[in-house]
Amino acid sequence: MKDAPMESTQDIVTRILAGEVRAAARLMRDLDDGVPGAREVLKHLYPQSGQAHIVGITGSPGVGKSTLTDRLIQHLRNQEHTVGVVAVDPTSPFSGGAILGDRIRMQRHATDEGVFIRSLATRGHFGGLTASARAVLTVLDAMGKDYLLVETVGVGQDEVEIAATAYTTLVVTVPGLGDDIQALKAGLLEVADILVVNKADREGAERTQQDLLAMLDLRFAKETPAWMPRIYLTQAKRDEGISELLAGIQEHQAYLSREGGENLRAARLERVRQEFLELMKEGIYHHLVSLLRQDDRLQAILEDILDRRTDPYTACETLIAQTLPGDDSNTS
Amino acid sequence: MKDAPMESTQDIVTRILAGEVRAAARLMRDLDDGVPGAREVLKHLYPQSGQAHIVGITGSPGVGKSTLTDRLIQHLRNQEHTVGVVAVDPTSPFSGGAILGDRIRMQRHATDEGVFIRSLATRGHFGGLTASARAVLTVLDAMGKDYLLVETVGVGQDEVEIAATAYTTLVVTVPGLGDDIQALKAGLLEVADILVVNKADREGAERTQQDLLAMLDLRFAKETPAWMPRIYLTQAKRDEGISELLAGIQEHQAYLSREGGENLRAARLERVRQEFLELMKEGIYHHLVSLLRQDDRLQAILEDILDRRTDPYTACETLIAQTLPGDDSNTS
Repeated sequence: MKDAPMESTQDIVTRILAGEVRAAARLMRDLDDGVPGAREVLKHLYPQSGQAHIVGITGSPGVGKSTLTDRLIQHLRNQEHTVGVVAVDPTSPFSGGAILGDRIRMQRHATDEGVFIRSLATRGHFGGLTASARAVLTVLDAMGKDYLLVETVGVGQDEVEIAATAYTTLVVTVPGLGDDIQALKAGLLEVADILVVNKADREGAERTQQDLLAMLDLRFAKETPAWMPRIYLTQAKRDEGISELLAGIQEHQAYLSREGGENLRAARLERVRQEFLELMKEGIYHHLVSLLRQDDRLQAILEDILDRRTDPYTACETLIAQTLPGDDSNTS
Repeated sequence: MKDAPMESTQDIVTRILAGEVRAAARLMRDLDDGVPGAREVLKHLYPQSGQAHIVGITGSPGVGKSTLTDRLIQHLRNQEHTVGVVAVDPTSPFSGGAILGDRIRMQRHATDEGVFIRSLATRGHFGGLTASARAVLTVLDAMGKDYLLVETVGVGQDEVEIAATAYTTLVVTVPGLGDDIQALKAGLLEVADILVVNKADREGAERTQQDLLAMLDLRFAKETPAWMPRIYLTQAKRDEGISELLAGIQEHQAYLSREGGENLRAARLERVRQEFLELMKEGIYHHLVSLLRQDDRLQAILEDILDRRTDPYTACETLIAQTLPGDDSNTS
């Protein structure tokens, strides 16, 4: 399986920190495949991460997230910024998914050394899809990319979360979907720093803008937030409104860094919290499953549940009480 | 918040086992809201579950899963079976999502006592969306429903899994999406007991059928499986092909029960395994987070990670090693 002689962890770290695309791509594959040592490399990269500005781009399937991402890459490159992209969206052409049959010419960035695109459609050995995405972001960040774009489909809860923990979160919609606005109300609006009405040449774009404004007014009726979400109208396919949108993203970036960077630190702490807790969840789980496997306890418990000698809720509580140190607080 | 006097666990259990819709709906809400005692009721219901035949229905957005589900309800009712439905699909009109603007007249079953529809669009207190879905299935099962239909969008991994752990899993596609077939190859095909080509009046239906057949041939080239997945062409909107599809579902159901029910037991064990491990993951996680909160340890760890005094991977491994009993096997 090896296509190169064994390298030391430090060699790989050095090559990735120098921005070597092949070494980074190899590490990402190794992380997915659970190759021993890959996680060690990640540990060494982590201290060098934390500089990139992370932008989340989410919304329903079909609103044009990928085209928008493509345009943002292009505008960021025009500003001579380096860009990393992670697509966690099975319907995205980035992810090779294109379930809705809507492939685009994303490949034009493939030869640009300043751009690194990584797509995640299925979860690898690393854990959940979001855990994989976060690991990839750490690698791209350590490589020194200025901007990291995370495209996720706003359908699954995990997908929304990974976009929501970006420093600047874009929620993308299109005109004319009254129901879509309803869906935004339900949760996506809560995480938006910037709202994008894409395909703004369609009928009803202004109406959608008005609806969004009204929703923001309602939400912030009692007190004005430190950052009031902005609304941008774009036509990503025709490259219209993208400069303005990027300016908005960079204003939000500047806002986070203002006044000693307290807002940025809060946003970073929230990212770290999410990442650590996700890792804990996966780590504890794997630890416990391998413990249970050692003495066939798992199989015995499952048979007990199957034959209704116990129920999974009681079995779970009993096992946790037996295995983990006590907890004085209430558990429901 | 209470809209009824306090009832004993046993009272609620009795009412739900008697099939009382209001009591069941109340319990499902209470589970989502984390009302104390709700999980106790679930424990008492569990021994009475395990009789229903669970049918998973999954596929990309827009293939007509909800219309198909609606038709299956109708045909099952014509056979005088009772039906429970769980929709874990933010794009489904069942879930009130209808992100793609495609609402349907699902309400006609609302007055039928033999049908209980529950939709889950966001995760509640109970844990993940799949944990909520499984809890709802247990309640519906204990209520005595003959068939449980689980509609999930085939996008997120969790959504696919919940459909995949049904006893009979339907994967729905539509003609003319060459890319969609690619996506099926990637994972959905693996979980299908039955493949449905819906909207079969569209051009290319036979071609799609041929493609699917070729993929099945390829997959099972080396050995014929005990159950060879069947392919059905339907037009759910016009109620065409649904009788044949239901017959196929019931043949699969009969196949599982054949020869002493060994296949059914295996399918049930797999469901129990998934459910138990998911509960463990959530349970351990919440236990540990509340432990960490007791002495501000969590905040201290997060600050250490944020300031790069450690990395989240090392912090996680250290904490697990300190907290959980040892594990002799290898962890990577």
